[in-house]
Amino acid sequence: MRMGEIELLKRIERMLPPPGRGVALGLGDDCAIFRPAGSRDDLLFTTDLMLEDVHFLRDTHPAGAVGWKTLARGLSDIAAMGGQPRFCLLSLAIAPWTDDKWINGFYRGLLELARRTGVTLAGGDLGHAERLAADIVVCGSVPRGQALRRDGARPGDAIWVSGRLGGAALGLASRRGAAWRKHLQPEPRVALGRFLRSRVHASACMDLSDGLSLDLHRLCLASGVAAELDAVPVFRGATLEQALNGGDDYELLFTARAGATVPESFQGAPLERIGTVRRGRAGRVLFGGRPLEPRGYDHLRPH
Amino acid sequence: MRMGEIELLKRIERMLPPPGRGVALGLGDDCAIFRPAGSRDDLLFTTDLMLEDVHFLRDTHPAGAVGWKTLARGLSDIAAMGGQPRFCLLSLAIAPWTDDKWINGFYRGLLELARRTGVTLAGGDLGHAERLAADIVVCGSVPRGQALRRDGARPGDAIWVSGRLGGAALGLASRRGAAWRKHLQPEPRVALGRFLRSRVHASACMDLSDGLSLDLHRLCLASGVAAELDAVPVFRGATLEQALNGGDDYELLFTARAGATVPESFQGAPLERIGTVRRGRAGRVLFGGRPLEPRGYDHLRPH
Repeated sequence: MRMGEIELLKRIERMLPPPGRGVALGLGDDCAIFRPAGSRDDLLFTTDLMLEDVHFLRDTHPAGAVGWKTLARGLSDIAAMGGQPRFCLLSLAIAPWTDDKWINGFYRGLLELARRTGVTLAGGDLGHAERLAADIVVCGSVPRGQALRRDGARPGDAIWVSGRLGGAALGLASRRGAAWRKHLQPEPRVALGRFLRSRVHASACMDLSDGLSLDLHRLCLASGVAAELDAVPVFRGATLEQALNGGDDYELLFTARAGATVPESFQGAPLERIGTVRRGRAGRVLFGGRPLEPRGYDHLRPH
Repeated sequence: MRMGEIELLKRIERMLPPPGRGVALGLGDDCAIFRPAGSRDDLLFTTDLMLEDVHFLRDTHPAGAVGWKTLARGLSDIAAMGGQPRFCLLSLAIAPWTDDKWINGFYRGLLELARRTGVTLAGGDLGHAERLAADIVVCGSVPRGQALRRDGARPGDAIWVSGRLGGAALGLASRRGAAWRKHLQPEPRVALGRFLRSRVHASACMDLSDGLSLDLHRLCLASGVAAELDAVPVFRGATLEQALNGGDDYELLFTARAGATVPESFQGAPLERIGTVRRGRAGRVLFGGRPLEPRGYDHLRPH
């Protein structure tokens, strides 16, 4: 298989000079980390594209849900690093089919989630394109040096996940019920991310945007470890395939020292132990004793 | 005429709650301003779209120039507020025609300008789209409370501009010589912006991205003033129409108290006094005694 995004990121990384003054973490995690001079907080930055015909379809996705999900994708990255979201910027390229009603609905959905999470829409850019394209930038803050990262998992750590997986993939296939709502309006796990940072002291964390098999592979690559998967909590009605390889769930995948106290649930979302970090080839994942291929959604792999 | 972008921004502003904690300036200036807790600096944020068939054409614009200009657009916004650029994030949606050579050229152009201006590429997002779309986010820093803004012009202030205008429009039409280079690889006036903030104490500043007539109108609207234009420095070979209404020059438009000392040039760019801020209907601009219509490039006006 072709690992388009990982390969391209590696190529770009080789072209880069070392990070500049104040930039603590560059490419390769959910957010970039910036340390303002004299500040007691680090700032987290993430940018996420929301593209017509790639991330949504104009005929099936209501405008409000597209706006909501545009921001939710960025918030989920801030959640994954244990941050408090602060403000966002939106670049929006409007398509010829977009009318005033659609634009109002889009902003209403986005601003509703912004209100619920205490985020200010602070600026952006506007333009025209053949297909609608939105790019959201979210800035969050985290106490200096305490951001959760992908590269902290150590052999022996337990692997955990929030929620039940495959719901968004099921929803996209069925367009009905709770699974469709999960696909349309995911709830970014912002409070859970802060809890994992400040109380659980998770050793690594990332959000599940591209599917468990690919995202766990990425976390293991970043940490230089292997993993053994024992169980996967499956969304009601979804298949194991959807739970392993379906994208867009925006749950949190995290690791914690073996003795760490993790509650059974957090604000209604179950927290389940799904495996153990192992020594071994970086990125290798076993499930039921056999290698698990990273088959999740890679935006740069031909579909 | 239909003022698409201004109207849409107004509509969005009416939907917004007041700015949140730490966000000093939201929509409506070149950058958003964020004040991190305890920091001696304010942070500036800008996001700019670079869209195929809107901002560049794949057959006429070399990949390196597209990468350079993507970053230059963001840097110019930081320059306009007197900031020091620090890092950038890039969201890139690749089109079906994009090959490895193009992508390498694009990153090489972008990273060359990043190197020259001390900016780190700290992260981003990757995706696919029918036409290539890039969104750049640039973060800059400025001493607390000292960012140059659009809304500080007062009646009696002198109006100034850097460089000669209309070069990028001439270049797009002729695709030859210095004008074409000006269009392809604009030099954002970063050092000039800092100089205007720290030494000239400019009362207002913005960058010329959409043409003098529209951008001066916007500066006057933000400051609640009118303006009288006496002279326009025209790029060699360009028409007055191109100098007044052509976009993409990325020069700085600024105002300063009548007695301020402004040098004749800065790092090779002439600085010319072009008019005076007047009392009057906000946004009204006179040129040679007659009203000047804001005809510059509005990305949301049908072309």
